[in-house]
Amino acid sequence: MDGAEFRRRGKEMVDYVADYLEKIEQRPVYPDVEPGYLRSLIPTEAPLEAESYDDILKDVERVIMPGITHWHSPYFFAYFPAASSYPAMLADMLCGGIGCIGFTWAASPACTELETVMLDWLGKMLHLPEQFLAGTHGRGGGVIQATASEATLMSLLAARCKAVRRVQASNPEQSEGEIFSKLVAYTSDQAHSSVERAGLIGGVIMRKIPTDNSYAVKGEMLKNMVKEDKAAGLIPFFFCATLGTTPSCAFDHITELGPVCNEENVWMHIDAAYAGSAFICPEFRPLLNGVEHWQIPLGRRFRSLKLWFVFRMYGLTGLQAHIRKGSNELNQNLLKRINDSREIHLVPCQLSGRFVLRFAICARTTESQHIQQAWRHITQLTFELLQEPDH
Amino acid sequence: MDGAEFRRRGKEMVDYVADYLEKIEQRPVYPDVEPGYLRSLIPTEAPLEAESYDDILKDVERVIMPGITHWHSPYFFAYFPAASSYPAMLADMLCGGIGCIGFTWAASPACTELETVMLDWLGKMLHLPEQFLAGTHGRGGGVIQATASEATLMSLLAARCKAVRRVQASNPEQSEGEIFSKLVAYTSDQAHSSVERAGLIGGVIMRKIPTDNSYAVKGEMLKNMVKEDKAAGLIPFFFCATLGTTPSCAFDHITELGPVCNEENVWMHIDAAYAGSAFICPEFRPLLNGVEHWQIPLGRRFRSLKLWFVFRMYGLTGLQAHIRKGSNELNQNLLKRINDSREIHLVPCQLSGRFVLRFAICARTTESQHIQQAWRHITQLTFELLQEPDH
Repeated sequence: MDGAEFRRRGKEMVDYVADYLEKIEQRPVYPDVEPGYLRSLIPTEAPLEAESYDDILKDVERVIMPGITHWHSPYFFAYFPAASSYPAMLADMLCGGIGCIGFTWAASPACTELETVMLDWLGKMLHLPEQFLAGTHGRGGGVIQATASEATLMSLLAARCKAVRRVQASNPEQSEGEIFSKLVAYTSDQAHSSVERAGLIGGVIMRKIPTDNSYAVKGEMLKNMVKEDKAAGLIPFFFCATLGTTPSCAFDHITELGPVCNEENVWMHIDAAYAGSAFICPEFRPLLNGVEHWQIPLGRRFRSLKLWFVFRMYGLTGLQAHIRKGSNELNQNLLKRINDSREIHLVPCQLSGRFVLRFAICARTTESQHIQQAWRHITQLTFELLQEPDH
Repeated sequence: MDGAEFRRRGKEMVDYVADYLEKIEQRPVYPDVEPGYLRSLIPTEAPLEAESYDDILKDVERVIMPGITHWHSPYFFAYFPAASSYPAMLADMLCGGIGCIGFTWAASPACTELETVMLDWLGKMLHLPEQFLAGTHGRGGGVIQATASEATLMSLLAARCKAVRRVQASNPEQSEGEIFSKLVAYTSDQAHSSVERAGLIGGVIMRKIPTDNSYAVKGEMLKNMVKEDKAAGLIPFFFCATLGTTPSCAFDHITELGPVCNEENVWMHIDAAYAGSAFICPEFRPLLNGVEHWQIPLGRRFRSLKLWFVFRMYGLTGLQAHIRKGSNELNQNLLKRINDSREIHLVPCQLSGRFVLRFAICARTTESQHIQQAWRHITQLTFELLQEPDH
């Protein structure tokens, strides 16, 4: 494919994407396929001869689309807003064209520079204290991690590194392995599974703090656990609080920020899978020095360019709601009916052992009418379920 | 921005990208900016009011392009091929439009399905044994990791998990921490820094095996080290070999594959930052069960769709060369002159303590004439350097 063909096919693809998004409401939000559906639809081996572009494009509708969960359908109320916007898509096209990899400053200075300044923008919007900003002389600052899970892991590893140095400074005879086995991290018992996972990867104990009726962690509870663990010879070193700083939707986890903050979603219209998770901390440069062997996320490229487009094109809005009623079994049955009907799509969550239907307003295309329609649909299915003799 | 404007702006962007790539030779491959150059070129805070798209686009040439290292310039001989192709860019546009996140099968079945089948294609091309394939009944298979570094870490963590279970099966009283402190991994002393980093993150000892004159690891050497470590009460559990399976360019690391294989580059025209690293192993499902808390890479989306486009549009070619001559100081001086002149761009590497100028053919646009021109340029600069009185 040469430049001339790319110009033609690229413009067709722009129309295909615009058509897809403008008519997304007509597609069933959740696909009706069984595991393994795709294997029989494409060859068992990579083709030796090139195929025509038209044939490949036809296969998008034949092979791919039947297996897509349409995250940008106005009837998608599952997971979280993956967000997407036309400006972010344009920025993505530009990123694809430049196609550089910004893993060091020199590898493409604009990447590191734009990222640093943009995350100062974000830090200022969140009213983070001065020491979280890179500025021109600061020691703090941010990087974009690929996911919130990575940001959590990164902060835990940095804290682990710091803890080992602190312990070894006063007890040089202790080996890293010995210290690791005594390190204790803390998080809410309602925290995302990625927090537990970070503890598993880091090889440290992750203690879950019981939450109260409003799912909040009380400082007193944490204080007591820390006290007990210290008395038992363990080394408390990390507390994972969640803050709403994944630019598109979800959570972020910042070390040593003090009390647990409420989840607060900042919804920006950014392509989530690429926009990644903002990781902003004070004392950033020493942190990097401490963990120099794994300091720079590969894969970082021009996600900051997308942020930059979107910051300049849009304001910020946000909304998320949860439905928290009914017995576990009833809720499970209801969810199955909702998703089997394929009119809307929801996923559940667990709140202190309760099976909860989670209704998240995700898509940029969702309007009041879609929510009202979803509510009527859920009400109707619930009514039918409750009419059945076994309830 | 509505659909109509996206159609117009998207088509302009297609032309911008095609223009950029068709005239990339005219831009200096390596930027002439100092650290911090960008901060003064954009506002210190995110704008409160939206800006016009035209203004933002003008800033691409004013703010971004002066700080870009042009990885797709035919004069870019640094790092590795980030690769990129028009078909991959089209696939990327489609991915951006669909904008789903495939972190589980249900989150968008086509993602997992296409990825599984495509990595079977790749496994077959590499003539991997049957147990590395998912097939319809297999236990092996592959996933796409964001980077080779992630693939290395993933395999080390899986091996660590397996080792802990094996030890605890016969010694249930041993804690995880105790076992961690005895685990030893092995790799070549010429391995990429990401291998050492995986050991640091995993909290295990990483032993470097000395290489011979041809930078190869001898089995005998590894065998002796394992023997010694066992005698000292340590637990050898992981050997990191490198195989050329990052589809675009670089390395991959597969556990327990036996002897070290030579690096072998498979160069496919795929956008590297997104294409990621193929991670293919036998016993894939049990591996996932063993590490269920961190089984699915977030961020995985439609990189497989790009692979799929590219597999069907292109054949495979590859070439990489290294220049390995001269004293360390002379080579450092020469590299500085080469990069300061900005006609071509190279980076160095260390081979058993020698500072080596690494000349990698990276860009799809590089033709024989560019290499000849680069060679004349290097020869000329070397000649000038050697003429100087202090040499």
